[in-house]
Amino acid sequence: MPETIIVTGAHGLIGSAVCRLFAKTYTVSTIGRRAPANMIADIADPATIERLDLTGAKCLIHCAGIVDEDFSNPARAFRQAIEGMAALVRRAKQDGVRRFVYISSAHVYGPFAGEIDENSRPNPLHDYAIAHFASEQILRRATTDEFIGCAIRPCAVFGIPADLDRFRRWALIPFGFPRAAVHDGVIGLASRGLQRRNFIGSDDIARAISLWLEQEQVARFTGINAVGQTSMTVLDFANMCAASAERITGRATRVTRPDGVDPAPDNFDYRTIDPRFVGHSSLPDFVDRMCALMHTPDRQFQ
Amino acid sequence: MPETIIVTGAHGLIGSAVCRLFAKTYTVSTIGRRAPANMIADIADPATIERLDLTGAKCLIHCAGIVDEDFSNPARAFRQAIEGMAALVRRAKQDGVRRFVYISSAHVYGPFAGEIDENSRPNPLHDYAIAHFASEQILRRATTDEFIGCAIRPCAVFGIPADLDRFRRWALIPFGFPRAAVHDGVIGLASRGLQRRNFIGSDDIARAISLWLEQEQVARFTGINAVGQTSMTVLDFANMCAASAERITGRATRVTRPDGVDPAPDNFDYRTIDPRFVGHSSLPDFVDRMCALMHTPDRQFQ
Repeated sequence: MPETIIVTGAHGLIGSAVCRLFAKTYTVSTIGRRAPANMIADIADPATIERLDLTGAKCLIHCAGIVDEDFSNPARAFRQAIEGMAALVRRAKQDGVRRFVYISSAHVYGPFAGEIDENSRPNPLHDYAIAHFASEQILRRATTDEFIGCAIRPCAVFGIPADLDRFRRWALIPFGFPRAAVHDGVIGLASRGLQRRNFIGSDDIARAISLWLEQEQVARFTGINAVGQTSMTVLDFANMCAASAERITGRATRVTRPDGVDPAPDNFDYRTIDPRFVGHSSLPDFVDRMCALMHTPDRQFQ
Repeated sequence: MPETIIVTGAHGLIGSAVCRLFAKTYTVSTIGRRAPANMIADIADPATIERLDLTGAKCLIHCAGIVDEDFSNPARAFRQAIEGMAALVRRAKQDGVRRFVYISSAHVYGPFAGEIDENSRPNPLHDYAIAHFASEQILRRATTDEFIGCAIRPCAVFGIPADLDRFRRWALIPFGFPRAAVHDGVIGLASRGLQRRNFIGSDDIARAISLWLEQEQVARFTGINAVGQTSMTVLDFANMCAASAERITGRATRVTRPDGVDPAPDNFDYRTIDPRFVGHSSLPDFVDRMCALMHTPDRQFQ
């Protein structure tokens, strides 16, 4: 029997990529709120986590951390990020799971400005960032020589959603921009769009986790800046999406911005001290595929 | 009329010292859960904070942050540290209060090891430390050129409690050790006691806040390591308390430790990059006064 990897958030953008990659060499067992998850628990309800039996697993990959949208209910989001995380870490450690991966966020470093690598100082400012940092610290404090932890900190994640009808992350620009370009023929930016982002594929994240998991000698706790091939401004990304949509739909596609003076160029440069973790996925290829998927005349993805 | 300073936690160890000092030059207005507070609100209940009117105050000094004991109910403690803090910061900012001081903790730096000053990297690990760090960040993100913030990070705080009968912080060694020495004739350490602590008087903290408040030009957000005159190991502090108790009671007083080998000497050195914030209060004087107060044959302080 192959070894077992446990995954939370298996239906999500990153979790589904993790399941895809790890299913090749491991038995993947999922924790979710309802069937077809292999184990039923709600990350925001510690009592349901306490009842799980995780014995025998090599690693737990926790992809069901909080997302921006969770903060429509901040109390629940913080409960999930703090109490739920603590319960999951405790359960995994008590059951002898040897490694624990937490999908965190580049936002733990604070404003996206200047050169940021793993030696940069944490400075989480949004509720979302504070909650991710708290989750990281809850894992970090639990780590020992026998219970090893890792926090993956991506910036902007892209990847073809496993189920477009259930996908709800359209507020993220890698998804919202292609959809607007194809459906509406216009991408309306909320700002001048000169803020830079690093774009990483969900497959790249799965691969980084796999690389970390295969290392024999690792620190008790490692923070990994999962960095993708492409960094560009939000405006440049919008223009890339508009150009792709034009090719696919044959219709002129515009990018609109609020009137105003462009701010000083953004110097954000997201880096990693360990170049093995730099991803390979192509952002332009993703945009083309996403625009093609959106180009279904009789469906609107909400 | 003197300007107004608002204080939360006015009955606490630090809050009472703050009220004492600031009452000399300001009108001090207090927020508390019940009379005789000037304004009634519960820091763990954001709705009660939203109803406050803080207009006209120069500064809010938030001394009612979470304490270790609050974590008997972690959900409430985090609600106080995150939602309550956010509400208080929002209320103060909206009402035009120009400065906000948060009493945080040296624990935001993580384990007490090595030389730690304000340039050290935050690494909060206990729930208590994570909650304080989250509160700091909630303040930090709200700061502007017109709303300036400061987080004070003391290590071990001492000071004669304003009301010994209501005092409930006996788990802290500056209070528990003198009490045990005088009442029981023995201070029982839970460890070998070689961990070093920096001891700062609550009056020193009030003075550091006053110094910061009097500065005309300050950064939008400043973290201040309020450092006291004396650093010593827990064991040395216990011996200091035992010697003081012996002088006062005339009775032999022992310090007991669990059997075992002493760990490597602790190299913790708590420092500040701004020596104006180093305190003056005498730890030995405090211990003598505390032991004398405990030496009341017909009362036991619980």
